[in-house]
Amino acid sequence: MTQENEERKKIEVKINRRKYTIVGTESKEHMELVAKLVNDKMMEIYENNKHLDTTKLAVLTAINTMNDYLKLKADYEDLETLIEEEN
Amino acid sequence: MTQENEERKKIEVKINRRKYTIVGTESKEHMELVAKLVNDKMMEIYENNKHLDTTKLAVLTAINTMNDYLKLKADYEDLETLIEEEN
Repeated sequence: MTQENEERKKIEVKINRRKYTIVGTESKEHMELVAKLVNDKMMEIYENNKHLDTTKLAVLTAINTMNDYLKLKADYEDLETLIEEEN
Repeated sequence: MTQENEERKKIEVKINRRKYTIVGTESKEHMELVAKLVNDKMMEIYENNKHLDTTKLAVLTAINTMNDYLKLKADYEDLETLIEEEN
């Protein structure tokens, strides 16, 4: 979450049966959605790798999310290029 | 990483001083970049929260990355809407 000079909210979320306090300027709903998506991804990875400890699971969740981010970033840049070519 | 029916590569990366084997159809360079970005983000969060254990650190890294992902997704959808309006 960002640390901009807007009103910062503290909310408590549960991920993989553990509580986390996250701080952000986004809405409570947005932060809860982020936490839910992380939890879902973590459970999905766990289902396919039940031997992993929680730390490994969390790191692999972060890796997976970063991979999705980079793919979307590439798509975004393609779309930008498309717009520039059209203009 | 995805599990598509392409050639899957296994590579070893180091995140927060621990080794992880990741499997993906992407290039070795891409997977190493993903791991580096996760490691950088994790170190950045650690610098501001030195009391956190590795699991918490990794979960917060995943949360942060997911937040970036959702923001980019909103930008992507805005750009798509823009294209549709122009056409």
